[in-house]
Amino acid sequence: MLIGAAMMPHGNPVLKPEDEGTRKLAEALKEIGEEFSKAEAYVIISPHNIRMSEALGVIMAENLISWLGFGEVQLPGEYKTEKELAREIYQRAKANGLPVVDINFASLSGEYSRFPLTWGELIPLHFLEKRPVVLLTPARKVSRATLVEFGEVVGEVLEEYDKKVAFIASADHAHAHGNGPYGYAPEAKEYDELVMRIIQENRLEKLLEIPDELISKALPDSYWQLLVLYGVLKKVPMKVKLAEYACPSYFGMGAALFVRE
Amino acid sequence: MLIGAAMMPHGNPVLKPEDEGTRKLAEALKEIGEEFSKAEAYVIISPHNIRMSEALGVIMAENLISWLGFGEVQLPGEYKTEKELAREIYQRAKANGLPVVDINFASLSGEYSRFPLTWGELIPLHFLEKRPVVLLTPARKVSRATLVEFGEVVGEVLEEYDKKVAFIASADHAHAHGNGPYGYAPEAKEYDELVMRIIQENRLEKLLEIPDELISKALPDSYWQLLVLYGVLKKVPMKVKLAEYACPSYFGMGAALFVRE
Repeated sequence: MLIGAAMMPHGNPVLKPEDEGTRKLAEALKEIGEEFSKAEAYVIISPHNIRMSEALGVIMAENLISWLGFGEVQLPGEYKTEKELAREIYQRAKANGLPVVDINFASLSGEYSRFPLTWGELIPLHFLEKRPVVLLTPARKVSRATLVEFGEVVGEVLEEYDKKVAFIASADHAHAHGNGPYGYAPEAKEYDELVMRIIQENRLEKLLEIPDELISKALPDSYWQLLVLYGVLKKVPMKVKLAEYACPSYFGMGAALFVRE
Repeated sequence: MLIGAAMMPHGNPVLKPEDEGTRKLAEALKEIGEEFSKAEAYVIISPHNIRMSEALGVIMAENLISWLGFGEVQLPGEYKTEKELAREIYQRAKANGLPVVDINFASLSGEYSRFPLTWGELIPLHFLEKRPVVLLTPARKVSRATLVEFGEVVGEVLEEYDKKVAFIASADHAHAHGNGPYGYAPEAKEYDELVMRIIQENRLEKLLEIPDELISKALPDSYWQLLVLYGVLKKVPMKVKLAEYACPSYFGMGAALFVRE
């Protein structure tokens, strides 16, 4: 059963907040962690793990191991994959005709069946109690409808699963807020405000109206995972329990918690 | 241009040979290394990296980094991906309707675009001078014809490429020779002898006649990569320069070098 869903950022600043906004954001992440302590497994979709242009990924490797941090920040972490749930998501998505691949590594099972984690997973997981995980990866060159449909499949599978599961979209927003490697574009603020309003109002269907041009200028790492989150929430409608946003450097970060009505 | 092709094992024993047969095998690997010192890039297909059931993989990540050894043996290693060649293989395979995905990791480019290597790549690469690499991954649940066709596409792309390239199939043979984790099956010896004979006689088309049952009982890590090698050699016929085999533990290892006529 799906007990909740969240959007969680993966930027280093939430680990050591240096301003009031980021502190509030980190507090929100802790609240998500408390809410999700009821879960027996997490499903997390991350933009900084496997990146395939046109295929959605379900990581099947048994052991998920910290490998790559951003900057000098490397969180440790070892997680088990909730394999039965991963297999069910893969098979159901495939049966629905979605462009999905199952990804194992090195060996099909046992200690050598391992997969590397990055800041994209480790930072959200840092705020959550340790549980088995299913790691999913989005794709940017599939249609918006495909991403939503994948979310619907995930929502359906999680709802039917016999353990309590929480869904997490790892997502940072626009990267073109200036003073960073991606320069400045006014669309960054526009995108972030729009997305946070859509989330606060719990009208994620509005994500589908965001023009490609706004997305490509704002440079978010969130849009594709949010469409999957929308699909999940289409299947299992929930209410917004909290939403926070901060932009302490060149990229926007937001947190949101959805719980059952 | 394709300057040569090889089958290379990835078992730890070739790193520290303890018997005459394995010493000869390691010598053959050094000879492959000398022959391939003429190459400007390598394309290697490995069974111990990404494992997808039904999709062939082309690793697009810029940096390939040692991550996972077998047992206590961890070779270091950092390689650059020959990105242009990787992209061409992916695009050509896709244009040919093959089930192929492009795999990047963490970031699309730059220092965070990294991918982990295992013993499946590091041991063959250990015998070769350092060059940029394209890493490919096979799949076991696609048809034999698909694997051969993928090899043909790879052969065609390598032949047209403006740098000198060598193709390497990382492959260990049957794992059911006994005294190991996979037990004993007489089919292990049968498979290994058959495959080495096929290679020595340079009649790789005979691979297609090997029954599924023999493969499933022998438990090789070679069959699928050898079909891709066959496809490469179909496009660019070569002669066998050397072939060696040893079985110092529970799995068979073979080396073969193909050079242009």
